[in-house]
Amino acid sequence: MMFRGILVASVTLALGAVSNVQAASPKAAVQAWRKAHEREILADFSALLAMPNVATVQADVEKNAAYIQSLLEKRGFKTELLFAEPGTPPSVFAELKTPGATRTVVFYAHYDGQPISQKGWISTPFEPSMRTALPEAKPIDWKSAASLDPEWRIYARSAGDDKGSIQALISAFDALKASGVKPTVNIKLLYEGEEEQGSPHFSKLVAKHLETVRGDLLIMGDGPMHQSGKQEINFGNRGITGFKATVYGPLKPLHDGHYGSWAPSPTVMIASLVMSLRDDEGRILIPGVYDDVAPISSADRTALAALPDVETGLKQSLGLGRNIGPPRLADGYMAPTLNVRAIHAGDDGPSAANAIATQGDASFDFRLDPGETPARIQALTEDWLTKQGWYIVRDTPDLALRLAHPKIARINWDAGSSIATESPMDGPAAKAVAASISRTVGYPILKLPFSGASSGMAEIVNQMKAPMVGVSIANYDDNQHAQNENLRLGNLWDGIEVYAGLLADLNW
Amino acid sequence: MMFRGILVASVTLALGAVSNVQAASPKAAVQAWRKAHEREILADFSALLAMPNVATVQADVEKNAAYIQSLLEKRGFKTELLFAEPGTPPSVFAELKTPGATRTVVFYAHYDGQPISQKGWISTPFEPSMRTALPEAKPIDWKSAASLDPEWRIYARSAGDDKGSIQALISAFDALKASGVKPTVNIKLLYEGEEEQGSPHFSKLVAKHLETVRGDLLIMGDGPMHQSGKQEINFGNRGITGFKATVYGPLKPLHDGHYGSWAPSPTVMIASLVMSLRDDEGRILIPGVYDDVAPISSADRTALAALPDVETGLKQSLGLGRNIGPPRLADGYMAPTLNVRAIHAGDDGPSAANAIATQGDASFDFRLDPGETPARIQALTEDWLTKQGWYIVRDTPDLALRLAHPKIARINWDAGSSIATESPMDGPAAKAVAASISRTVGYPILKLPFSGASSGMAEIVNQMKAPMVGVSIANYDDNQHAQNENLRLGNLWDGIEVYAGLLADLNW
Repeated sequence: MMFRGILVASVTLALGAVSNVQAASPKAAVQAWRKAHEREILADFSALLAMPNVATVQADVEKNAAYIQSLLEKRGFKTELLFAEPGTPPSVFAELKTPGATRTVVFYAHYDGQPISQKGWISTPFEPSMRTALPEAKPIDWKSAASLDPEWRIYARSAGDDKGSIQALISAFDALKASGVKPTVNIKLLYEGEEEQGSPHFSKLVAKHLETVRGDLLIMGDGPMHQSGKQEINFGNRGITGFKATVYGPLKPLHDGHYGSWAPSPTVMIASLVMSLRDDEGRILIPGVYDDVAPISSADRTALAALPDVETGLKQSLGLGRNIGPPRLADGYMAPTLNVRAIHAGDDGPSAANAIATQGDASFDFRLDPGETPARIQALTEDWLTKQGWYIVRDTPDLALRLAHPKIARINWDAGSSIATESPMDGPAAKAVAASISRTVGYPILKLPFSGASSGMAEIVNQMKAPMVGVSIANYDDNQHAQNENLRLGNLWDGIEVYAGLLADLNW
Repeated sequence: MMFRGILVASVTLALGAVSNVQAASPKAAVQAWRKAHEREILADFSALLAMPNVATVQADVEKNAAYIQSLLEKRGFKTELLFAEPGTPPSVFAELKTPGATRTVVFYAHYDGQPISQKGWISTPFEPSMRTALPEAKPIDWKSAASLDPEWRIYARSAGDDKGSIQALISAFDALKASGVKPTVNIKLLYEGEEEQGSPHFSKLVAKHLETVRGDLLIMGDGPMHQSGKQEINFGNRGITGFKATVYGPLKPLHDGHYGSWAPSPTVMIASLVMSLRDDEGRILIPGVYDDVAPISSADRTALAALPDVETGLKQSLGLGRNIGPPRLADGYMAPTLNVRAIHAGDDGPSAANAIATQGDASFDFRLDPGETPARIQALTEDWLTKQGWYIVRDTPDLALRLAHPKIARINWDAGSSIATESPMDGPAAKAVAASISRTVGYPILKLPFSGASSGMAEIVNQMKAPMVGVSIANYDDNQHAQNENLRLGNLWDGIEVYAGLLADLNW
């Protein structure tokens, strides 16, 4: 998002029950400090991004946690690594009390990252690389450049999802300190280390340390900004539960000329299983799967309708000749989604043969709406598969099982799952956040009832019973979860200002 | 197949119009010679198998051709490498005239092999390895063993498909020569080098050299024996045509939480494309695809009904709790089959992400029956895909095409295809072959109207207008086209006797 040059004083907003509004936004001071320290910020950010953090590599995750802890200790935070149990990924917790403050704001982000083995990375995922604006994306030596173009992007795993958020908050804190601006609230930071695994232990971690992490408002710094480039906040996330399915054909590959008319084909079986769960238009075919979805409120409808058109541009940039589901992107978040992550069966390419494969695999994840639970969706899915003749197992079936059941599906649900969470859009804390960010960015921000994505955050919200607001700073096209993840420099600069504004004037 | 100990003289057969029956089968002499030369035969066979012969690696294919040519030259054959055009895989042609013979028999086999990159090879594909009987399959040092168990198997790519057939014929020739038995017919050998690629140039090669390769009977030494272990002959092959399909989603992977309800999913699209062509029961769903299938004659029905039950044992050994299509395996050959060789979309395993993939791929092959042509099947398939909204292209679509067409499928048909061929079961040459082999094996052999598999042989049959008989020697469970291809020693020994019998007493 480019700085739009609108004077903060010119923006008039209904601020609701705000009790202690700062006289002036710290934006000018923060911006001046940032401009004087851009290279230091980028050096720090690069060091953070250079630390491998694939969620499933525990040793790497622990190194990141220790490093982030040290960054916060240096800044005067009281820190602690929180564990659900020994050996699980730590959350970095940090606290800074503000004398006289009556409110405590918990800032959440996650420091772990997605896998990096996707094909097509233009640079090494853990060797941060500055590149010019799209579509060129040419490597550029930012250290010796005369000035830094905000359209440049820094490429690395987790640049956008979600270390950028951590860097923005730390830099915001540094900027305020340098400018002599004091926070208005007690600050707690909670940086999760297993979000990209689906937060398998995070619920337990939060329950165990509930009093430690408790606060009056949760601000989630994860996910991308609106595709229009405008600042957007959301009030929750969808839930998630995923599974892998394996179906079985002959114990060994068979010549398809001799056996293709007689032996069941796992390539067809897995395609059939997929198509029994979802159609090409995105409709989930599992009976009952839409029954528990909470109705859409009129406030939600209003907020959704107010979102700018991004769909036309998205189709153009993504090369899509159609969309599925509702025409408006965010309208689709109001119903559950079943994504087929992968389908694989049979040899292709260099080992291709005219053969019947021995098994077929597919991988799925549901995004769940308020009202739905992973357990209910899992039960509905398995009931539906069973009704279609699949005998469900949890391990590779032995010969006796194979002979006893015509159609066997091994179903293994992902370790991590979470329910959706949705906070009211009109609560006092939510309004204070909206007002603060609107002041910083200079226009009324967009509101999304909840994000299409999922987050371990749901566990805190539900256990702490505090409202949440999602504040994203990453460019929408940051390639999160994919190759060539990146963060646009301008987004980092804007993010620092947004976070500094929240720290400096948030109160209700 | 174990030798069953039935005296040749005790088998009574209606031989039809046989004009020049040998007084005695050379079986005893051939068997004695083989027993005295087993280790030499195996050393020769191992040398042949040790030559890499993946059909798509032209340089390797050429080395095999030169080597086989040299083996035949040494035995007095007049040889020649035949090409469709320069740079295409050669066929090895060899001829040996028999003074006074009025008939010419063309023995066909292929010396190229399937790819080797399948997972799970227990030994290196081009380092032939002798192993004990299944299920142990332990490596055994046959060179120093006191005796060779016919249940042992030699593991290597092409052991069963199809170098075993070449070795059996060469050894049969050696055995007859050593025993002083003269052939009854003029012999032509035609060993193809691109069968496992689908014979893309073989039709042209045969047309170009038709007079050279012409004969009165074609004997195809390819494919496995009947699952009962009994010797089986067939009178044709199914045709084949295959294709790859690619469908397209967003130009880059997308976070499925944010985009899963809106962006088309290539994993679902490719599964949908598969399921529109074939169902889980093996029925092809393309309108008109069964229209041109020739009716099943009563002779065919009789032959099929006479085949022993192998289905129960196959299900047990393959771990199948069901079959698809007709209950009897070979009945399924009488209708076209569509096999889905592979389906792939999305990242799984170490690079798994909750993402929408950018494309989906599937690979198919049709087995065609007499009456059907590849061109007709290709047209029906594309018509059907078009009717379902697929816009068919031959190359990766550019942005303009993607935006103009909601559903694009790139369809590329395999270079090689062939029509089916079926010779009459009751012709004089066919009867002579059946009688010869029945004499050798000591029981009335099984007859299959045509094999479920396909062969470049069809091109010779159709151009030469001579009858063909398929004579297989490989064990049915030779893992052809898959990892751990093997040939059972007993099958090689029996194959030598069968070929020697044909060379020594075939006439009509």
